[in-house]
Amino acid sequence: MGDQTLTFPRLEADKLEPHLPPRECSTPFVTLTFATSLDSALSLAPGTRTALSGPQSKAMTHYLRSRHDAICIGVGTAVADDPGLNCRIQGVGATQQPRPVVIDPNLRWQFTRQSKVLQLAKSGRGLAPFIITTTGTALSPEQQDLLEEHGGKYIALDRDAVTQRVQWRDILLALQSEGLHSLMVEGGGEVINSLLEPGANHLIDSVIVTIAPTWLGRGGVVVSPARRVDAHGHPIPAARLADTNWIPLGEDVVLCGRLAGSKET
Amino acid sequence: MGDQTLTFPRLEADKLEPHLPPRECSTPFVTLTFATSLDSALSLAPGTRTALSGPQSKAMTHYLRSRHDAICIGVGTAVADDPGLNCRIQGVGATQQPRPVVIDPNLRWQFTRQSKVLQLAKSGRGLAPFIITTTGTALSPEQQDLLEEHGGKYIALDRDAVTQRVQWRDILLALQSEGLHSLMVEGGGEVINSLLEPGANHLIDSVIVTIAPTWLGRGGVVVSPARRVDAHGHPIPAARLADTNWIPLGEDVVLCGRLAGSKET
Repeated sequence: MGDQTLTFPRLEADKLEPHLPPRECSTPFVTLTFATSLDSALSLAPGTRTALSGPQSKAMTHYLRSRHDAICIGVGTAVADDPGLNCRIQGVGATQQPRPVVIDPNLRWQFTRQSKVLQLAKSGRGLAPFIITTTGTALSPEQQDLLEEHGGKYIALDRDAVTQRVQWRDILLALQSEGLHSLMVEGGGEVINSLLEPGANHLIDSVIVTIAPTWLGRGGVVVSPARRVDAHGHPIPAARLADTNWIPLGEDVVLCGRLAGSKET
Repeated sequence: MGDQTLTFPRLEADKLEPHLPPRECSTPFVTLTFATSLDSALSLAPGTRTALSGPQSKAMTHYLRSRHDAICIGVGTAVADDPGLNCRIQGVGATQQPRPVVIDPNLRWQFTRQSKVLQLAKSGRGLAPFIITTTGTALSPEQQDLLEEHGGKYIALDRDAVTQRVQWRDILLALQSEGLHSLMVEGGGEVINSLLEPGANHLIDSVIVTIAPTWLGRGGVVVSPARRVDAHGHPIPAARLADTNWIPLGEDVVLCGRLAGSKET
């Protein structure tokens, strides 16, 4: 990844502005953002990090991080990528770093003192994560101490009685009570697809998808929400975007929009 | 579909020009073109026609047809859609219609006098199809008579000894010997994916993909070529585009480019 400072051109930033959280917002503003191939894959295989988009897209990701209070990934991405989850845009100081949020219901992430996100927190170049887990899961005191020593914490939420999953609504409420009013959801596939499903996608305020002109081929980790059907059992589009804006960026394109809700195409 | 004449703005056509066959070409120029959702689906389910892209995209498709000698679909699309396969761009007369080519190795397509493509041929608004089938398949004399009465014909090609499939190279050679020097491949999923595979994708001269800002959801007919692996068995990107040009068109975007070959990302 490198440690160099990044810049993102003002011209491009201005185009993104209508799709970003207002500078002051009280309710949590949720931005869903990720990069896929033409065949909607995030990576070639589970646990594989795949370089898809170009350098401009990387700078954009860090710019977007600078515009959110918190950035969110699932445990699979945390385990596979050892991500830094900080913001390296020029001029963004230690006090303006976004809070990493890792969704880890079953405490699969065995972070250590050497994990990149904790090293960045220690050196003042990022924040330690808030880890969303589930009520009743046995925390390791050592992990908990290590996390809190760096300024992070565990947040335990109840599972939904029906789905047995943590609900997005509960996550947002928990983050709001921590003073985090905007959340950028970055991945991976499971987290993105769950947020795009009918029970959750009304929580999305903005979608910013980068598409790279590559087909990864079958077998990758794919963004595609669960299928929806109408009253007669016929499939209907799962989700669509309105107020779209396509912004070419290097070899890639950036699609901005908002969820159009549950209307059929 | 309607029968109205379509127009496609000169401004947009000029942007597409570098991605289209030269006005004179001797070897077959192959353009691969289709419209997908964000999750790379052509339709919600096999045999289902899904309206994905907007009216500008439809006009573009007909404009592209006007710039090719032949347009090609697979038998699945012919059976599912009863397509007209003509060009309705204003000013394109009977003598300038593209030749429909239907790939039907096992003669599944039971066209009749009422099939749209034959009706259009009869009324001088399109051409009857050339149907690519395989050597040794038993033709029905009635179907053959009906096809030839409208100006179409069957073309029987040998199956490849190894894959047991008709080879794209043989199809192009057959079309070339019919005086058809440019081919626009439109769908469906099986035809597109087979053309994108390593053994065939070097035949593609130009790719023009329309992407609509919709997720159809899992279970649709998806464009995603077979996975490729490197010498160590690790997956690598299946295909990527170079010299890309992203053209916003209504709510959609049109991606133009050429296959970058077998280079790894």
